[in-house]
Amino acid sequence: MTERNIQVSELDRRAVEDQRVEIVERKGIGHPDSISDGIAESVSRALSQAYIDRVGKVLHYNTDETQLVAGSAAPAFGGGEVVEPIYLLIVGRATKEYEGTHIPVDTIALEAARDYLNEHVPMLDFGTDIVVDVKLGQGSGDLVEVFGEEGATVPMANDTSFGVGHAPLTETERIVLDAEERLNGEYGDDHPELGSDIKIMGKREGDRIDVTVAAAMIDSHVDDIDAYDEAVRSVKEYVTDIAREHTDREVGVEVNTADDYDDGSIYLTVTGTSAEMGDDGSVGRGNRANGLITPNRPMSMEATSGKNPVNHIGKIYNLLSTQIAESVVADVDGIRDLQVRLLSQIGRPIDEPHVADAQVVTEGDVDVSDIEADVRAIVDDELANVTDITRQVIDGDMRTF
Amino acid sequence: MTERNIQVSELDRRAVEDQRVEIVERKGIGHPDSISDGIAESVSRALSQAYIDRVGKVLHYNTDETQLVAGSAAPAFGGGEVVEPIYLLIVGRATKEYEGTHIPVDTIALEAARDYLNEHVPMLDFGTDIVVDVKLGQGSGDLVEVFGEEGATVPMANDTSFGVGHAPLTETERIVLDAEERLNGEYGDDHPELGSDIKIMGKREGDRIDVTVAAAMIDSHVDDIDAYDEAVRSVKEYVTDIAREHTDREVGVEVNTADDYDDGSIYLTVTGTSAEMGDDGSVGRGNRANGLITPNRPMSMEATSGKNPVNHIGKIYNLLSTQIAESVVADVDGIRDLQVRLLSQIGRPIDEPHVADAQVVTEGDVDVSDIEADVRAIVDDELANVTDITRQVIDGDMRTF
Amino acid sequence: MTERNIQVSELDRRAVEDQRVEIVERKGIGHPDSISDGIAESVSRALSQAYIDRVGKVLHYNTDETQLVAGSAAPAFGGGEVVEPIYLLIVGRATKEYEGTHIPVDTIALEAARDYLNEHVPMLDFGTDIVVDVKLGQGSGDLVEVFGEEGATVPMANDTSFGVGHAPLTETERIVLDAEERLNGEYGDDHPELGSDIKIMGKREGDRIDVTVAAAMIDSHVDDIDAYDEAVRSVKEYVTDIAREHTDREVGVEVNTADDYDDGSIYLTVTGTSAEMGDDGSVGRGNRANGLITPNRPMSMEATSGKNPVNHIGKIYNLLSTQIAESVVADVDGIRDLQVRLLSQIGRPIDEPHVADAQVVTEGDVDVSDIEADVRAIVDDELANVTDITRQVIDGDMRTF
Amino acid sequence: MTERNIQVSELDRRAVEDQRVEIVERKGIGHPDSISDGIAESVSRALSQAYIDRVGKVLHYNTDETQLVAGSAAPAFGGGEVVEPIYLLIVGRATKEYEGTHIPVDTIALEAARDYLNEHVPMLDFGTDIVVDVKLGQGSGDLVEVFGEEGATVPMANDTSFGVGHAPLTETERIVLDAEERLNGEYGDDHPELGSDIKIMGKREGDRIDVTVAAAMIDSHVDDIDAYDEAVRSVKEYVTDIAREHTDREVGVEVNTADDYDDGSIYLTVTGTSAEMGDDGSVGRGNRANGLITPNRPMSMEATSGKNPVNHIGKIYNLLSTQIAESVVADVDGIRDLQVRLLSQIGRPIDEPHVADAQVVTEGDVDVSDIEADVRAIVDDELANVTDITRQVIDGDMRTF
Repeated sequence: MTERNIQVSELDRRAVEDQRVEIVERKGIGHPDSISDGIAESVSRALSQAYIDRVGKVLHYNTDETQLVAGSAAPAFGGGEVVEPIYLLIVGRATKEYEGTHIPVDTIALEAARDYLNEHVPMLDFGTDIVVDVKLGQGSGDLVEVFGEEGATVPMANDTSFGVGHAPLTETERIVLDAEERLNGEYGDDHPELGSDIKIMGKREGDRIDVTVAAAMIDSHVDDIDAYDEAVRSVKEYVTDIAREHTDREVGVEVNTADDYDDGSIYLTVTGTSAEMGDDGSVGRGNRANGLITPNRPMSMEATSGKNPVNHIGKIYNLLSTQIAESVVADVDGIRDLQVRLLSQIGRPIDEPHVADAQVVTEGDVDVSDIEADVRAIVDDELANVTDITRQVIDGDMRTF
Repeated sequence: MTERNIQVSELDRRAVEDQRVEIVERKGIGHPDSISDGIAESVSRALSQAYIDRVGKVLHYNTDETQLVAGSAAPAFGGGEVVEPIYLLIVGRATKEYEGTHIPVDTIALEAARDYLNEHVPMLDFGTDIVVDVKLGQGSGDLVEVFGEEGATVPMANDTSFGVGHAPLTETERIVLDAEERLNGEYGDDHPELGSDIKIMGKREGDRIDVTVAAAMIDSHVDDIDAYDEAVRSVKEYVTDIAREHTDREVGVEVNTADDYDDGSIYLTVTGTSAEMGDDGSVGRGNRANGLITPNRPMSMEATSGKNPVNHIGKIYNLLSTQIAESVVADVDGIRDLQVRLLSQIGRPIDEPHVADAQVVTEGDVDVSDIEADVRAIVDDELANVTDITRQVIDGDMRTF
Repeated sequence: MTERNIQVSELDRRAVEDQRVEIVERKGIGHPDSISDGIAESVSRALSQAYIDRVGKVLHYNTDETQLVAGSAAPAFGGGEVVEPIYLLIVGRATKEYEGTHIPVDTIALEAARDYLNEHVPMLDFGTDIVVDVKLGQGSGDLVEVFGEEGATVPMANDTSFGVGHAPLTETERIVLDAEERLNGEYGDDHPELGSDIKIMGKREGDRIDVTVAAAMIDSHVDDIDAYDEAVRSVKEYVTDIAREHTDREVGVEVNTADDYDDGSIYLTVTGTSAEMGDDGSVGRGNRANGLITPNRPMSMEATSGKNPVNHIGKIYNLLSTQIAESVVADVDGIRDLQVRLLSQIGRPIDEPHVADAQVVTEGDVDVSDIEADVRAIVDDELANVTDITRQVIDGDMRTF
Repeated sequence: MTERNIQVSELDRRAVEDQRVEIVERKGIGHPDSISDGIAESVSRALSQAYIDRVGKVLHYNTDETQLVAGSAAPAFGGGEVVEPIYLLIVGRATKEYEGTHIPVDTIALEAARDYLNEHVPMLDFGTDIVVDVKLGQGSGDLVEVFGEEGATVPMANDTSFGVGHAPLTETERIVLDAEERLNGEYGDDHPELGSDIKIMGKREGDRIDVTVAAAMIDSHVDDIDAYDEAVRSVKEYVTDIAREHTDREVGVEVNTADDYDDGSIYLTVTGTSAEMGDDGSVGRGNRANGLITPNRPMSMEATSGKNPVNHIGKIYNLLSTQIAESVVADVDGIRDLQVRLLSQIGRPIDEPHVADAQVVTEGDVDVSDIEADVRAIVDDELANVTDITRQVIDGDMRTF
């Protein structure tokens, strides 16, 4: 076993929590870019599982290029209608035959998309409000045998790629992430008028956090402008309460700021997503692997959703670096900000990166040397278990957007 | 009221029933061409109804160009799977806006297609086994105001077009038509193994009628080759019995003659239609308006399904000429074969054709002059009520393929 | 050698030339249905040739389902523009691999379509005025080895199919066919303002023939309404002269009758085809194999264009029956009308049809028995050389629409 | 005139040039993601220009969602062929009508794509090697009147958005950028065997820079493996020379490292882009606005290509912040690294950002206070001329990827 090249050093900048201005964004599950990410990843999971079920191992595929073309709609209080359907094209490569076994990748992809939409954007009637088509080419035929029934072996990196993860989340980040998840979770369960297309922007300047929410309302559950106003107000209160759970800083929350009641210009939709009316979407254009867009932090351009979780080094390293950062912060005290970078080395097993680079901003009374050994041990352990990432992704236990 | 130009004369050929060789074909409801016809017509009906509901009159549209691109499938005893979905493109023109009211023609079309398929080819999962897309351009904007809530007025013919109808059906024609309808009706209700893609060819030479049936079997209801053989045998018996109801001539029935049990080459499908595996389809390529393909009789090339039933003269005249022929034969004795042709006159109301031409082969003891007045009266009456055709088409009470 | 079942008998109707009313139509080469036919057939020819070049024999394919979706355009005197491109989808099945040789069927199809359009509808910019896409599924894998470099063998009929041909053409038929061909030929060469979408309807009542021409004019070659009027007038004169070459009957010619100069409603186009503005098209909806639509004659519903010319029995028999009829009439005197029908026999070589049926209306002084032997000999000879049809089709020497 | 909120401060990290590890990437002009970016931006420019030409001002549009679906190809020494065409879908919104003037946005988009491809990936035959389709929905109808013939006015920000720019480029960045541009420029002019799909990765560790080039070779200009090897070797020498122009550090260059001559696995293509064989692409997934992917620097997730340059604040601020950074560094001495961030303020003119934030790492002997006034003046001036960005973008004078 080669010793891994793990570097622990001081991060040469202030912790994001201590920077003067911080911007954070999350595109909720019903945003057109997130729909694309979600379908790409659900197709990926379905293919991985199908390959395992049918041939005992995951074969070559990548489905990280879903394109959503917006439709048009005519929302109306009490219930409007979709005028032109959304069009969504699932794009990628997938192995269609292996040693005589044919795998119906197109049908699997369409079924995965249908199931995903039915669960996450249930107001969209599959096939009529949204037309989903698929173009999966034959892959290059490279076999991916590493993740099969006889257990996982560690694949080789076939590309120079880079993953970056961070922990802990700042207050602003936690507010943005938590608010979207709970609006699309428990709140949505009780408030059918709230669509799944919720975009949240958090901006912190010094000790004031402003949260701006754009929340699509569903017309069939909104009878009139008063009901709409009440729905907006309720979201505002709910998000304000969430924000207060995460911070003692001054907080302001605005919901649907672009509304103009006099003009009748409000964020009312038929299906709960702006994809119904003019907003296109595609994979990799929205949230990073940790669920957020964080201009204050280095981010990978790599699209994570839809990539093959067995051998796509960009996907694995983005997920793994995030997981490492979270593990370290969970187990090691005294860390104010941690940034983990993994750089692959072509031709080497992916558990032996060219460099694993953990950079920390420590609490005032802690020195990097105090925690270096602990950090290194956790990084080493996580790298040793890199194939766990693959399993968690296939099981749907890991966020990719 | 102009007097109508109605000609009644002797048909200058033998009755089809008396010709030496007769060929008749019907593509069943699940045949790819018939699926295209069926969807085109169901979209047409849905649009007509939507226009009436929303603006009080039928607006300009034509949806007579559906294209079906076959998929691929892997049938297997006990249940196989669709590998590549069927792709179906609904094509046409439709008015999308009328005096400020927007009509969601794309969504209406997709819903009509979905409902039609769910009813008639229920083994096809909409959106996964078959991807349906729609391209409805803006029409030329001509208004069709003739068929609205204030009652129908008779539109003007805007094209030189031609319709032709026949009655009565010959024995061979009745066998072919009846067999397909009952196989896809009561027989299918009791025999879930029988798919809806049933193609029947009848060939009469003198006094022998040979009926050849190609019937797609559904694999999830067929456990093995014995069950398949039993299913084929059962269809053969059923069709033989039907044939005997219609004729005293010698009858032979063959089902799935291309099967080769030794090669394992049988007509087994996942969804009950050959569209799942290589057979493309489109509108107007299959049955004529009377449900049959009859090379022994003059036929119109005009596609009937999907056309606007208010003002498309080709559709109306094909349906009307058939209805006239049936009415005449029902009410007037002594007719062995009747052919009705309607030729439009541009710029005149469609109830005043350039010529309505009823040509008859009479029974041996009947002369054309004996029945001419009765025939003329019925033709005149049917022409006077031409707008009834439109209503029946919109209500789905009239066959178009 | 089996003796062929060739029947020669009297046709039990008047010659079409002697019927009271006759209707004939031809959709010119730029009509949306004809564009579909033309591309389908050019793709077919290109595939046949590519198979021969690459593997020495024609492999399984059928490309008879092209769908054209109309665009929209804004014509204007002196030159307008296409607003929304025409969309054309080439549909079919084609063998993509044979004993290790890959055949790029998609690229071949697109190149054939491009070349065809550049030649026949040159005002359409390929890729911008018309978007052409292709969906060619894998065929059933049946090999077609009959037409290869070692010479042709006669294939077996695998379907019950029917072809019908006629000769000679009536005066009306000749006028319609000749007028379209010469307008799109020598006349068009000298008159760039004339588009290729020319639809001609001939209607004969007794001894009067009315010819109605709908001719798309190309706006960049028409400066104003006077020029347009002059262009229409010129077509009228030209067609009138052609008509007089073919008949001594009374002739009337109308061109673009739907024009209304006061309303500015004229048949002006950017590209010379109505496909640019609202007229969809597909294969097999227009002209029959002899180039005409002839409701007075039995016609096959079968689409001829795009079918595999080696083993598609419907295509071969439609072309062959027409060729037989023409040969007979060319060589045997005394025939006023001849109808040749070929009915296939499943499992038998296609040069041995179930029946070849030649029905004649003879000139007054000729009896069927006088010519029966001559007719039979020619039919027999043509059947013996059935594979010539395939070669002529591949070489593009035979009309299919 | 409001005083602009311009902050100048010290950047709280080391200059990238001084960091231990640096990674830089550029996807060359023929890379599938860059093709998507390039077409999106060329469509955008064409639409802007068309709007100005036809209605005197730029109307609402965004075309930032092009999706490329890879084809398949069979390259071979001396010339292979494309087997399945690339499919490219141009997606977006565009205003199709303004005060009675119709703008043919679909045709304009297709022509822009054709012209772009013909110029930049000339081996791709438009329409046969690559099928380009377009889906441009109607936009929300918001008018963009700010950039018209009467001169530009400064638009209001309608979104909270963020742009970031850097200067000067590090040695590694300059090497990567310069190498790709010159390979696709003067080198390509003399070496037709070099495709436009050139991906360059630069990795600096301390004082060693490794440059990895993946360069698609064009088979019709490569006769055999020796010629291929010579082509690779030549690129290596050329890039090595370029690298030496920019640095005194140790340099290593590798070209097509994944090649395996024994296996016959080399980077040979028919058209010079990996899009022909399995590599999909889409907008915003590749290079940032400065032409590079720089994980060591904050980057915007925003796709720049294809966005409306008049009022899309994300596009404008990304381009402007980069231009500001370059201007400052050009005019002010003593700056080792400069990062400029622009944050928009909803409802305010875009020349008055919420904050314009210039953070510098100064040379050892320079203090921020020494240069603060100069920096501020340049930032202020550039903001005042923000509409110049729009003009440069429309004229194609500004890089977006």
